[in-house]
Amino acid sequence: MALIVHKYGGTSMGSPERIRNVAKRVAKWARAGHQMVVVPSAMSGETNRLLALAKELAPSKSSAAYNRELDMLAATGEQASSALLAIALQAEGMESVSYAGWQVPIKTNSAFTKARIESIDDDRVRADLAAGKVVVITGFQGVDEEANVTTLGRGGSDTSAVAVAAAMKASECLIYTDVDGVYTTDPRVVPEARRLHTVSFEEMLEMASLGSKVLQIRSVEFAGKYKVPLRVLSSFTPWDIDINEEAKSGTLITFEEDEKMEQAVVSGIAFNRDEAKVSVLGVPDKPGIAYHILGAVADANIEVDVIIQNISKDGKTDFSFTVHRGEYARTVELLNTKVLPSLGAAEVVGDTKICKVSIVGIGMRSHVGVASKMFRSLSEEGINIQMISTSEIKTSVVIDEKYMELAVRALHKAFDLDQPVS
Amino acid sequence: MALIVHKYGGTSMGSPERIRNVAKRVAKWARAGHQMVVVPSAMSGETNRLLALAKELAPSKSSAAYNRELDMLAATGEQASSALLAIALQAEGMESVSYAGWQVPIKTNSAFTKARIESIDDDRVRADLAAGKVVVITGFQGVDEEANVTTLGRGGSDTSAVAVAAAMKASECLIYTDVDGVYTTDPRVVPEARRLHTVSFEEMLEMASLGSKVLQIRSVEFAGKYKVPLRVLSSFTPWDIDINEEAKSGTLITFEEDEKMEQAVVSGIAFNRDEAKVSVLGVPDKPGIAYHILGAVADANIEVDVIIQNISKDGKTDFSFTVHRGEYARTVELLNTKVLPSLGAAEVVGDTKICKVSIVGIGMRSHVGVASKMFRSLSEEGINIQMISTSEIKTSVVIDEKYMELAVRALHKAFDLDQPVS
Repeated sequence: MALIVHKYGGTSMGSPERIRNVAKRVAKWARAGHQMVVVPSAMSGETNRLLALAKELAPSKSSAAYNRELDMLAATGEQASSALLAIALQAEGMESVSYAGWQVPIKTNSAFTKARIESIDDDRVRADLAAGKVVVITGFQGVDEEANVTTLGRGGSDTSAVAVAAAMKASECLIYTDVDGVYTTDPRVVPEARRLHTVSFEEMLEMASLGSKVLQIRSVEFAGKYKVPLRVLSSFTPWDIDINEEAKSGTLITFEEDEKMEQAVVSGIAFNRDEAKVSVLGVPDKPGIAYHILGAVADANIEVDVIIQNISKDGKTDFSFTVHRGEYARTVELLNTKVLPSLGAAEVVGDTKICKVSIVGIGMRSHVGVASKMFRSLSEEGINIQMISTSEIKTSVVIDEKYMELAVRALHKAFDLDQPVS
Repeated sequence: MALIVHKYGGTSMGSPERIRNVAKRVAKWARAGHQMVVVPSAMSGETNRLLALAKELAPSKSSAAYNRELDMLAATGEQASSALLAIALQAEGMESVSYAGWQVPIKTNSAFTKARIESIDDDRVRADLAAGKVVVITGFQGVDEEANVTTLGRGGSDTSAVAVAAAMKASECLIYTDVDGVYTTDPRVVPEARRLHTVSFEEMLEMASLGSKVLQIRSVEFAGKYKVPLRVLSSFTPWDIDINEEAKSGTLITFEEDEKMEQAVVSGIAFNRDEAKVSVLGVPDKPGIAYHILGAVADANIEVDVIIQNISKDGKTDFSFTVHRGEYARTVELLNTKVLPSLGAAEVVGDTKICKVSIVGIGMRSHVGVASKMFRSLSEEGINIQMISTSEIKTSVVIDEKYMELAVRALHKAFDLDQPVS
């Protein structure tokens, strides 16, 4: 008998019929002898519906007091879907009870709309499990020290599920979603993309942060930190498929490096076209430049991803970085008005038509020549590289957006990702 | 500077536009120097939408565990509308914060779906008011000793508002609704019906329990018990009408008998066609009959309203009472199977096509002949009275349903309710 956490996304909870299927699936696991904790998202569309109402009432509002109310509002979506799932489980003959974040409690800090989990008290949940109940816990939300409702930000239900699994030392946390696992790259771009049976959490972390939207990145960080075995699998298989088959399906995200994983140098190709490139040209090359430029950007609460500083020439250098495309205009404006005048730099230029393509693989650590193979492959396709950034387990390039699919396909083939694993 | 509680029904909260109007009205009161607490219902239709989802998942479920989940589900409606109202108030330039029942906390017993308020801790709300904030408190809900969400039953937001007003010793509790006050009777039946400027809480209690759907009866009980001045008024007046005019509009429900109220003997005509009549005929007239019959009915959780026992004849008597129409079949079945055999009674008969019409007035206490005037008036219209029940401030008759409108109009005229008060 193991303690298992299931997490179901909004699409899986999208209608009474689907909620009933989730209940049947969870009941199957419970009847197989497992202690079950289930973390559902809000019914699909519900969070957007609620936030649109808020937007209509206060189009341009932004303050801690406003964000507090947004959290009160948005948290109702998961409270409703959790109660509905408990009701569906009861209708399936299971004893079941649902808890909102504050009832567990899942304690967070007070950063409304993007709170961080600080601790989870599992006494109440354990007592219910011991009494044979299936416990449903609202995803996405918690409670701060002053008993205010908080939410964890978009996709936060993944994080809730992993955090609960970590706190309760669950045997496995199963993330049911609308894809059937993690792929070597997006199958819509490369039809030959393969599902990975296992992927290391570090690779998954890079994949998630690079735009593979399967899991929220914080949930992967959590899983890695607390060594929670995490499985991504499909909620659209029939609920009554064999439980042993289901338990091995999808992709397992592991925190242990076993020998098998050494085989593949590169596990996947990630990509993202959410970014824009900004360059400050003709910057006097003296100590403190990076801080001078990026400090101002950070103070404006703009997140920066890739950062490149080119070598100096004639005492001047060029400094480039990428930001989210939605922050591009604000960033350029900020640099022109606040940074350029005091810096004595020549000019700010930028480009929103870029994309970032990355190869990710834990095997890269011990293999030389991986990056150069990537560059050669892109060169053979005539794709110009604008920026390069590397880490231990990934190499990213920024290229013209129009070459994105071509680059991804070329790299997927170059690293033999379309070949079955022996 | 007074502490004022406003309560807004689901229709008043029915759209972003209407929520904005509520916010403007509340802001007007706050800017006039009042400390404001606002209790909104869920947006109209929302509670029904949520409960329909539950019904679809568990068509015939009924248990404490199920009711607990229904409350978790239904409570989200008020949490969402409260957050939206706080957001709208912020957009109007007011500082505002919303609290769910558990955050105040409003403590209740654990009778899910029909909980009773036990206590309200107002420290947090008082601190916010002192800091100049408008406090929005969810109606309809509370929290029990084990931190479970509870709801107070349909219309419970009225009760929440009055309970908050009582706990905080508010100067007045204003119930904004889709009617502009309490009338001498339903204007849809009697076009000459007049709005009452004041009505005693005891009269209101009888009116509410007799089917005047303006206020939930428990809210009136609460108001009477804690002497909360309660005003029913329209939420469809323009939000920017003069505050002094608004403060005097609608109907004030008072707990003090002043001289003015002595003028009218009868304040209003109430009526209701939700009931059915059940008679047990040929009951042996011996001690314990009433208990024998009504005990069985009460044990089946069926509420009884009017109870009549006729005088005995030949050692046999007839025993009649009314129940909610929806309980009629179950009541007759219960009497036939469980009560008749052991009682030695002859027969159970009944009628669902009845209605109850009542005259209500605190002045009846000190005036003779009021009931006989009622009976004469009905007799002149050729209406046969089937049952009669009296109390200090009301007289009710059960008559054939088809005469309801006729009876109400005749009584309204007989007691001069269509004449302006001098």
